Amino acid sequence: MALATAARPREAEILDSIRQTFAEKGFDGASMQDLARAAGMSVGNFYRYFPSKAAMVEAIVTRDLAEVEEKFTGIAAAADPLAALRCGLHQHIEEECSGCDDGPLWAEITAAALRKPEIGAVVQKMESEIRGYLLSAFAMIAGMPRDEAERRFAAHSAMVVMLVKAAAIQAQAGGQVSAGRIELNGLVKRMIDAVLAEVAAAQSKD
Amino acid sequence: MALATAARPREAEILDSIRQTFAEKGFDGASMQDLARAAGMSVGNFYRYFPSKAAMVEAIVTRDLAEVEEKFTGIAAAADPLAALRCGLHQHIEEECSGCDDGPLWAEITAAALRKPEIGAVVQKMESEIRGYLLSAFAMIAGMPRDEAERRFAAHSAMVVMLVKAAAIQAQAGGQVSAGRIELNGLVKRMIDAVLAEVAAAQSKD
Repeated sequence: MALATAARPREAEILDSIRQTFAEKGFDGASMQDLARAAGMSVGNFYRYFPSKAAMVEAIVTRDLAEVEEKFTGIAAAADPLAALRCGLHQHIEEECSGCDDGPLWAEITAAALRKPEIGAVVQKMESEIRGYLLSAFAMIAGMPRDEAERRFAAHSAMVVMLVKAAAIQAQAGGQVSAGRIELNGLVKRMIDAVLAEVAAAQSKD
Repeated sequence: MALATAARPREAEILDSIRQTFAEKGFDGASMQDLARAAGMSVGNFYRYFPSKAAMVEAIVTRDLAEVEEKFTGIAAAADPLAALRCGLHQHIEEECSGCDDGPLWAEITAAALRKPEIGAVVQKMESEIRGYLLSAFAMIAGMPRDEAERRFAAHSAMVVMLVKAAAIQAQAGGQVSAGRIELNGLVKRMIDAVLAEVAAAQSKD
Protein backbone atom coordinates (compact mmCIF):
# COMPACT_ATOMS: atom_id res chain seq x y z
CA MET A 1 0.00 0.00 0.00
CA ALA A 2 2.40 2.64 -1.23
CA LEU A 3 -0.01 5.53 -1.61
CA ALA A 4 -2.22 5.15 1.42
CA THR A 5 0.45 6.04 3.95
CA ALA A 6 1.33 9.54 2.78
CA ALA A 7 -0.99 11.91 0.98
CA ARG A 8 0.55 13.20 -2.20
CA PRO A 9 -1.12 15.88 -4.26
CA ARG A 10 -0.83 13.95 -7.50
CA GLU A 11 -2.12 10.70 -5.99
CA ALA A 12 -5.55 10.82 -7.63
CA GLU A 13 -4.07 11.78 -10.97
CA ILE A 14 -1.52 8.95 -10.88
CA LEU A 15 -4.16 6.37 -9.93
CA ASP A 16 -6.38 7.59 -12.76
CA SER A 17 -3.54 7.18 -15.23
CA ILE A 18 -2.94 3.61 -13.98
CA ARG A 19 -6.63 2.74 -14.28
CA GLN A 20 -6.74 4.03 -17.82
CA THR A 21 -3.54 2.24 -18.86
CA PHE A 22 -4.78 -1.12 -17.51
CA ALA A 23 -8.12 -0.65 -19.25
CA GLU A 24 -6.45 0.22 -22.56
CA LYS A 25 -3.50 -2.17 -22.70
CA GLY A 26 -4.73 -4.99 -20.48
CA PHE A 27 -3.39 -6.02 -17.10
CA ASP A 28 -0.54 -8.08 -18.59
CA GLY A 29 -0.18 -5.93 -21.70
CA ALA A 30 0.60 -2.75 -19.71
CA SER A 31 4.36 -2.61 -19.02
CA MET A 32 5.93 -0.74 -16.12
CA GLN A 33 7.24 1.65 -18.81
CA ASP A 34 3.70 2.23 -20.12
CA LEU A 35 2.39 2.80 -16.60
CA ALA A 36 5.23 5.15 -15.56
CA ARG A 37 4.98 7.15 -18.80
CA ALA A 38 1.21 7.57 -18.41
CA ALA A 39 1.78 8.80 -14.85
CA GLY A 40 4.41 11.28 -16.05
CA MET A 41 7.11 9.67 -13.90
CA SER A 42 10.46 8.01 -14.49
CA VAL A 43 10.37 4.22 -14.30
CA GLY A 44 12.70 4.27 -11.29
CA ASN A 45 10.59 6.75 -9.38
CA PHE A 46 7.38 4.90 -10.33
CA TYR A 47 8.80 1.60 -9.04
CA ARG A 48 9.43 3.19 -5.67
CA TYR A 49 5.75 4.05 -5.32
CA PHE A 50 4.48 0.84 -6.91
CA PRO A 51 6.85 -2.10 -6.65
CA SER A 52 4.23 -4.42 -8.26
CA LYS A 53 0.97 -4.44 -10.16
CA ALA A 54 -0.66 -5.88 -7.04
CA ALA A 55 0.36 -2.69 -5.19
CA MET A 56 -1.36 -0.64 -7.92
CA VAL A 57 -4.56 -2.69 -7.69
CA GLU A 58 -4.46 -2.31 -3.91
CA ALA A 59 -4.14 1.47 -4.17
CA ILE A 60 -7.02 1.64 -6.66
CA VAL A 61 -9.17 -0.58 -4.43
CA THR A 62 -8.33 1.44 -1.31
CA ARG A 63 -9.48 4.64 -2.96
CA ASP A 64 -12.68 3.03 -4.26
CA LEU A 65 -13.43 1.53 -0.85
CA ALA A 66 -13.17 4.96 0.78
CA GLU A 67 -15.94 6.15 -1.56
CA VAL A 68 -18.02 3.05 -0.84
CA GLU A 69 -17.64 3.55 2.92
CA GLU A 70 -18.81 7.14 2.62
CA LYS A 71 -21.92 6.06 0.72
CA PHE A 72 -22.79 3.40 3.29
CA THR A 73 -22.34 5.91 6.12
CA GLY A 74 -24.98 8.00 4.39
CA ILE A 75 -27.28 4.99 4.03
CA ALA A 76 -26.95 4.09 7.73
CA ALA A 77 -27.84 7.67 8.70
CA ALA A 78 -30.83 7.89 6.35
CA ALA A 79 -34.39 8.00 7.67
CA ASP A 80 -35.24 5.06 5.38
CA PRO A 81 -32.08 2.96 4.92
CA LEU A 82 -33.80 0.52 2.52
CA ALA A 83 -34.85 3.34 0.20
CA ALA A 84 -31.40 4.95 0.49
CA LEU A 85 -29.61 1.67 -0.33
CA ARG A 86 -31.95 0.93 -3.21
CA CYS A 87 -31.50 4.42 -4.60
CA GLY A 88 -27.71 4.27 -4.19
CA LEU A 89 -27.49 0.95 -6.05
CA HIS A 90 -29.76 2.19 -8.84
CA GLN A 91 -27.65 5.32 -9.21
CA HIS A 92 -24.51 3.20 -9.38
CA ILE A 93 -26.02 1.13 -12.20
CA GLU A 94 -26.95 4.32 -14.05
CA GLU A 95 -23.49 5.82 -13.69
CA GLU A 96 -21.75 2.70 -14.95
CA CYS A 97 -24.04 2.84 -17.94
CA SER A 98 -23.27 6.38 -18.91
CA GLY A 99 -19.70 7.43 -19.30
CA CYS A 100 -18.22 6.43 -15.94
CA ASP A 101 -16.55 3.53 -17.70
CA ASP A 102 -15.08 1.27 -15.03
CA GLY A 103 -16.12 -1.84 -16.95
CA PRO A 104 -12.86 -2.50 -18.85
CA LEU A 105 -10.76 -1.97 -15.70
CA TRP A 106 -12.85 -4.41 -13.65
CA ALA A 107 -12.92 -6.93 -16.48
CA GLU A 108 -9.10 -6.84 -16.49
CA ILE A 109 -8.79 -7.09 -12.72
CA THR A 110 -11.41 -9.89 -12.53
CA ALA A 111 -9.50 -11.95 -15.10
CA ALA A 112 -6.12 -11.29 -13.44
CA ALA A 113 -7.56 -12.20 -10.02
CA LEU A 114 -8.36 -15.74 -11.23
CA ARG A 115 -4.80 -16.25 -12.48
CA LYS A 116 -2.64 -14.42 -9.96
CA PRO A 117 -3.13 -15.23 -6.26
CA GLU A 118 -1.77 -11.85 -5.09
CA ILE A 119 -4.38 -10.00 -7.20
CA GLY A 120 -7.05 -12.49 -6.18
CA ALA A 121 -6.31 -11.71 -2.53
CA VAL A 122 -6.74 -7.95 -3.06
CA VAL A 123 -10.00 -8.40 -4.98
CA GLN A 124 -11.38 -10.82 -2.37
CA LYS A 125 -10.54 -8.40 0.39
CA MET A 126 -12.34 -5.63 -1.48
CA GLU A 127 -15.44 -7.71 -2.25
CA SER A 128 -15.51 -8.96 1.31
CA GLU A 129 -15.46 -5.38 2.66
CA ILE A 130 -18.26 -4.33 0.32
CA ARG A 131 -20.30 -7.40 1.29
CA GLY A 132 -19.67 -6.42 4.91
CA TYR A 133 -21.13 -2.93 4.34
CA LEU A 134 -24.11 -4.49 2.59
CA LEU A 135 -24.65 -6.97 5.45
CA SER A 136 -24.62 -4.15 8.01
CA ALA A 137 -27.23 -2.33 5.95
CA PHE A 138 -29.24 -5.55 5.59
CA ALA A 139 -29.16 -6.07 9.38
CA MET A 140 -30.52 -2.57 9.86
CA ILE A 141 -33.20 -3.02 7.19
CA ALA A 142 -34.39 -6.40 8.50
CA GLY A 143 -34.07 -5.29 12.13
CA MET A 144 -31.86 -8.18 13.15
CA PRO A 145 -28.42 -8.59 14.74
CA ARG A 146 -25.45 -8.27 12.39
CA ASP A 147 -24.36 -11.90 12.86
CA GLU A 148 -27.82 -13.19 11.99
CA ALA A 149 -27.83 -11.05 8.84
CA GLU A 150 -24.43 -12.51 7.99
CA ARG A 151 -25.71 -16.07 8.36
CA ARG A 152 -28.87 -15.50 6.36
CA PHE A 153 -27.91 -12.97 3.70
CA ALA A 154 -24.35 -13.82 2.68
CA ALA A 155 -25.60 -14.91 -0.75
CA HIS A 156 -27.74 -11.77 -1.09
CA SER A 157 -24.74 -9.54 -0.47
CA ALA A 158 -22.63 -11.57 -2.94
CA MET A 159 -25.41 -11.34 -5.54
CA VAL A 160 -25.59 -7.53 -5.28
CA VAL A 161 -21.81 -7.26 -5.75
CA MET A 162 -21.96 -9.68 -8.71
CA LEU A 163 -24.86 -7.86 -10.40
CA VAL A 164 -23.24 -4.43 -10.07
CA LYS A 165 -19.91 -5.71 -11.44
CA ALA A 166 -21.48 -7.69 -14.27
CA ALA A 167 -23.65 -4.73 -15.28
CA ALA A 168 -20.61 -2.42 -15.36
CA ILE A 169 -18.68 -4.85 -17.57
CA GLN A 170 -21.69 -5.55 -19.81
CA ALA A 171 -22.40 -1.83 -20.24
CA GLN A 172 -19.10 -1.45 -22.06
CA ALA A 173 -19.71 -4.24 -24.59
CA GLY A 174 -19.83 -2.18 -27.74
CA GLY A 175 -22.34 -4.17 -29.74
CA GLN A 176 -25.41 -3.66 -27.67
CA VAL A 177 -27.78 -1.02 -28.95
CA SER A 178 -28.41 1.86 -26.62
CA ALA A 179 -32.11 1.11 -26.15
CA GLY A 180 -31.29 -2.48 -25.21
CA ARG A 181 -28.78 -1.25 -22.65
CA ILE A 182 -31.37 0.95 -20.96
CA GLU A 183 -33.82 -1.97 -20.83
CA LEU A 184 -31.17 -4.32 -19.46
CA ASN A 185 -30.30 -1.76 -16.77
CA GLY A 186 -33.98 -1.56 -15.87
CA LEU A 187 -34.06 -5.33 -15.44
CA VAL A 188 -30.83 -5.29 -13.38
CA LYS A 189 -32.48 -2.74 -11.07
CA ARG A 190 -35.59 -4.94 -10.74
CA MET A 191 -33.32 -7.89 -9.85
CA ILE A 192 -31.58 -5.78 -7.19
CA ASP A 193 -35.00 -4.76 -5.87
CA ALA A 194 -35.98 -8.45 -5.67
CA VAL A 195 -32.86 -9.24 -3.62
CA LEU A 196 -33.53 -6.30 -1.29
CA ALA A 197 -37.21 -7.30 -0.99
CA GLU A 198 -36.18 -10.74 0.29
CA VAL A 199 -34.02 -9.05 2.92
CA ALA A 200 -36.70 -6.56 3.94
CA ALA A 201 -39.34 -9.30 4.22
CA ALA A 202 -37.22 -11.41 6.57
CA GLN A 203 -38.13 -11.67 10.22
CA SER A 204 -35.51 -12.18 12.85
CA LYS A 205 -35.34 -15.80 14.00
CA ASP A 206 -32.99 -15.12 16.89
CA MET B 1 -12.45 -20.09 -38.76
CA ALA B 2 -9.65 -22.54 -39.35
CA LEU B 3 -11.15 -25.53 -37.62
CA ALA B 4 -14.79 -25.36 -38.66
CA THR B 5 -14.19 -26.15 -42.31
CA ALA B 6 -12.48 -29.53 -42.02
CA ALA B 7 -12.98 -32.04 -39.22
CA ARG B 8 -9.69 -33.11 -37.71
CA PRO B 9 -9.48 -35.86 -35.13
CA ARG B 10 -7.38 -33.81 -32.72
CA GLU B 11 -9.59 -30.73 -33.05
CA ALA B 12 -11.24 -31.09 -29.64
CA GLU B 13 -7.95 -31.81 -27.95
CA ILE B 14 -6.24 -28.78 -29.52
CA LEU B 15 -9.11 -26.47 -28.56
CA ASP B 16 -9.00 -27.78 -24.99
CA SER B 17 -5.28 -27.05 -24.79
CA ILE B 18 -5.88 -23.50 -26.06
CA ARG B 19 -8.67 -22.92 -23.51
CA GLN B 20 -6.44 -24.10 -20.71
CA THR B 21 -3.45 -22.03 -21.82
CA PHE B 22 -5.53 -18.83 -22.04
CA ALA B 23 -7.02 -19.52 -18.60
CA GLU B 24 -3.60 -20.15 -17.05
CA LYS B 25 -1.41 -17.52 -18.72
CA GLY B 26 -3.99 -14.89 -19.62
CA PHE B 27 -5.10 -13.83 -23.07
CA ASP B 28 -2.13 -11.51 -23.61
CA GLY B 29 0.25 -13.54 -21.47
CA ALA B 30 -0.11 -16.68 -23.59
CA SER B 31 2.41 -16.52 -26.44
CA MET B 32 2.02 -18.35 -29.77
CA GLN B 33 4.90 -20.54 -28.52
CA ASP B 34 2.99 -21.38 -25.32
CA LEU B 35 -0.16 -22.17 -27.28
CA ALA B 36 1.60 -24.30 -29.91
CA ARG B 37 3.58 -26.22 -27.28
CA ALA B 38 0.44 -26.97 -25.26
CA ALA B 39 -1.22 -28.25 -28.43
CA GLY B 40 1.79 -30.44 -29.18
CA MET B 41 2.41 -28.68 -32.51
CA SER B 42 5.27 -26.75 -34.07
CA VAL B 43 4.76 -22.99 -34.06
CA GLY B 44 4.74 -22.95 -37.88
CA ASN B 45 2.09 -25.63 -38.12
CA PHE B 46 0.02 -24.03 -35.34
CA TYR B 47 0.08 -20.66 -37.15
CA ARG B 48 -1.39 -22.32 -40.23
CA TYR B 49 -4.43 -23.48 -38.23
CA PHE B 50 -4.70 -20.35 -36.12
CA PRO B 51 -3.25 -17.22 -37.71
CA SER B 52 -4.47 -15.09 -34.77
CA LYS B 53 -5.86 -15.28 -31.26
CA ALA B 54 -9.17 -14.05 -32.67
CA ALA B 55 -9.24 -17.21 -34.85
CA MET B 56 -8.74 -19.31 -31.69
CA VAL B 57 -11.55 -17.56 -29.83
CA GLU B 58 -13.78 -18.02 -32.88
CA ALA B 59 -13.05 -21.77 -32.98
CA ILE B 60 -13.75 -22.09 -29.24
CA VAL B 61 -16.98 -20.12 -29.60
CA THR B 62 -18.09 -22.16 -32.64
CA ARG B 63 -17.71 -25.39 -30.72
CA ASP B 64 -19.54 -24.01 -27.66
CA LEU B 65 -22.36 -22.68 -29.85
CA ALA B 66 -22.88 -26.12 -31.39
CA GLU B 67 -23.51 -27.48 -27.87
CA VAL B 68 -25.83 -24.57 -27.06
CA GLU B 69 -27.81 -25.16 -30.27
CA GLU B 70 -28.23 -28.82 -29.41
CA LYS B 71 -29.58 -27.96 -25.96
CA PHE B 72 -32.08 -25.47 -27.36
CA THR B 73 -33.27 -28.00 -29.95
CA GLY B 74 -34.08 -30.28 -27.01
CA ILE B 75 -35.89 -27.46 -25.22
CA ALA B 76 -38.01 -26.65 -28.29
CA ALA B 77 -39.00 -30.31 -28.61
CA ALA B 78 -39.86 -30.72 -24.91
CA ALA B 79 -43.44 -31.19 -23.73
CA ASP B 80 -42.94 -28.26 -21.34
CA PRO B 81 -40.38 -25.88 -22.87
CA LEU B 82 -40.44 -23.53 -19.84
CA ALA B 83 -39.56 -26.36 -17.45
CA ALA B 84 -36.91 -27.66 -19.87
CA LEU B 85 -35.31 -24.22 -20.24
CA ARG B 86 -35.42 -23.62 -16.50
CA CYS B 87 -33.89 -27.01 -15.80
CA GLY B 88 -31.20 -26.54 -18.47
CA LEU B 89 -30.17 -23.16 -17.04
CA HIS B 90 -30.11 -24.51 -13.47
CA GLN B 91 -27.95 -27.43 -14.60
CA HIS B 92 -25.59 -25.05 -16.34
CA ILE B 93 -25.20 -23.02 -13.14
CA GLU B 94 -24.51 -26.23 -11.19
CA GLU B 95 -21.91 -27.44 -13.67
CA GLU B 96 -20.02 -24.14 -13.66
CA CYS B 97 -19.95 -24.37 -9.90
CA SER B 98 -18.47 -27.84 -9.73
CA GLY B 99 -15.36 -28.56 -11.66
CA CYS B 100 -16.33 -27.54 -15.17
CA ASP B 101 -14.20 -24.44 -14.74
CA ASP B 102 -14.91 -22.14 -17.67
CA GLY B 103 -14.78 -19.07 -15.45
CA PRO B 104 -11.13 -18.09 -15.93
CA LEU B 105 -11.39 -18.52 -19.72
CA TRP B 106 -14.49 -16.34 -19.98
CA ALA B 107 -13.00 -13.74 -17.63
CA GLU B 108 -10.00 -13.51 -19.99
CA ILE B 109 -12.12 -13.35 -23.14
CA THR B 110 -14.51 -10.79 -21.59
CA ALA B 111 -11.60 -8.50 -20.69
CA ALA B 112 -9.94 -8.92 -24.10
CA ALA B 113 -13.26 -8.24 -25.87
CA LEU B 114 -13.43 -4.75 -24.33
CA ARG B 115 -9.92 -3.92 -25.52
CA LYS B 116 -9.64 -5.63 -28.90
CA PRO B 117 -12.37 -4.97 -31.49
CA GLU B 118 -11.74 -8.26 -33.34
CA ILE B 119 -12.32 -10.26 -30.12
CA GLY B 120 -15.25 -8.03 -29.19
CA ALA B 121 -16.87 -8.86 -32.55
CA VAL B 122 -16.56 -12.63 -31.97
CA VAL B 123 -17.96 -12.39 -28.43
CA GLN B 124 -20.84 -10.18 -29.54
CA LYS B 125 -21.71 -12.60 -32.32
CA MET B 126 -21.72 -15.45 -29.81
CA GLU B 127 -23.84 -13.63 -27.23
CA SER B 128 -26.20 -12.48 -29.95
CA GLU B 129 -26.70 -16.10 -31.13
CA ILE B 130 -27.36 -17.31 -27.59
CA ARG B 131 -29.81 -14.45 -27.01
CA GLY B 132 -31.46 -15.50 -30.27
CA TYR B 133 -31.96 -19.06 -29.02
CA LEU B 134 -33.35 -17.71 -25.76
CA LEU B 135 -35.74 -15.38 -27.58
CA SER B 136 -37.06 -18.25 -29.70
CA ALA B 137 -37.68 -20.24 -26.52
CA PHE B 138 -39.30 -17.17 -24.89
CA ALA B 139 -41.64 -16.77 -27.91
CA MET B 140 -42.69 -20.40 -27.55
CA ILE B 141 -43.15 -20.10 -23.77
CA ALA B 142 -45.18 -16.87 -23.97
CA GLY B 143 -47.08 -18.06 -27.04
CA MET B 144 -46.24 -15.02 -29.12
CA PRO B 145 -44.60 -14.35 -32.49
CA ARG B 146 -40.78 -14.36 -32.50
CA ASP B 147 -40.53 -10.67 -33.43
CA GLU B 148 -42.82 -9.65 -30.57
CA ALA B 149 -40.68 -11.69 -28.16
CA GLU B 150 -37.63 -9.92 -29.54
CA ARG B 151 -39.17 -6.50 -28.95
CA ARG B 152 -40.33 -7.27 -25.43
CA PHE B 153 -37.73 -9.63 -24.01
CA ALA B 154 -34.39 -8.45 -25.40
CA ALA B 155 -33.34 -7.36 -21.90
CA HIS B 156 -34.52 -10.66 -20.40
CA SER B 157 -32.36 -12.64 -22.81
CA ALA B 158 -29.36 -10.36 -22.12
CA MET B 159 -29.91 -10.77 -18.36
CA VAL B 160 -29.88 -14.57 -18.56
CA VAL B 161 -26.61 -14.50 -20.54
CA MET B 162 -25.11 -12.02 -18.06
CA LEU B 163 -26.17 -14.03 -14.98
CA VAL B 164 -24.81 -17.31 -16.35
CA LYS B 165 -21.48 -15.71 -17.31
CA ALA B 166 -21.11 -13.78 -14.05
CA ALA B 167 -21.93 -16.90 -11.99
CA ALA B 168 -19.32 -18.93 -13.87
CA ILE B 169 -16.66 -16.29 -13.26
CA GLN B 170 -17.68 -15.79 -9.63
CA ALA B 171 -17.65 -19.56 -8.96
CA GLN B 172 -13.91 -19.58 -9.59
CA ALA B 173 -13.05 -16.79 -7.16
CA GLY B 174 -11.01 -18.77 -4.68
CA GLY B 175 -11.90 -16.93 -1.52
CA GLN B 176 -15.54 -17.79 -1.27
CA VAL B 177 -16.35 -20.59 1.09
CA SER B 178 -18.08 -23.57 -0.41
CA ALA B 179 -21.31 -23.13 1.56
CA GLY B 180 -21.53 -19.51 0.40
CA ARG B 181 -21.07 -20.61 -3.18
CA ILE B 182 -23.97 -23.05 -2.97
CA GLU B 183 -26.20 -20.36 -1.46
CA LEU B 184 -25.16 -17.82 -4.11
CA ASN B 185 -25.95 -20.37 -6.82
CA GLY B 186 -29.35 -20.92 -5.25
CA LEU B 187 -30.01 -17.19 -5.42
CA VAL B 188 -28.76 -17.01 -9.05
CA LYS B 189 -31.26 -19.75 -9.90
CA ARG B 190 -34.08 -17.85 -8.17
CA MET B 191 -33.12 -14.73 -10.19
CA ILE B 192 -33.22 -16.78 -13.42
CA ASP B 193 -36.62 -18.11 -12.36
CA ALA B 194 -37.82 -14.54 -11.80
CA VAL B 195 -36.71 -13.55 -15.31
CA LEU B 196 -38.45 -16.60 -16.82
CA ALA B 197 -41.58 -15.93 -14.75
CA GLU B 198 -41.86 -12.45 -16.28
CA VAL B 199 -41.66 -14.03 -19.73
CA ALA B 200 -44.17 -16.77 -18.95
CA ALA B 201 -46.63 -14.27 -17.45
CA ALA B 202 -46.61 -12.08 -20.54
CA GLN B 203 -49.63 -11.98 -22.82
CA SER B 204 -49.25 -11.34 -26.51
CA LYS B 205 -50.18 -7.77 -27.41
CA ASP B 206 -50.05 -8.33 -31.16
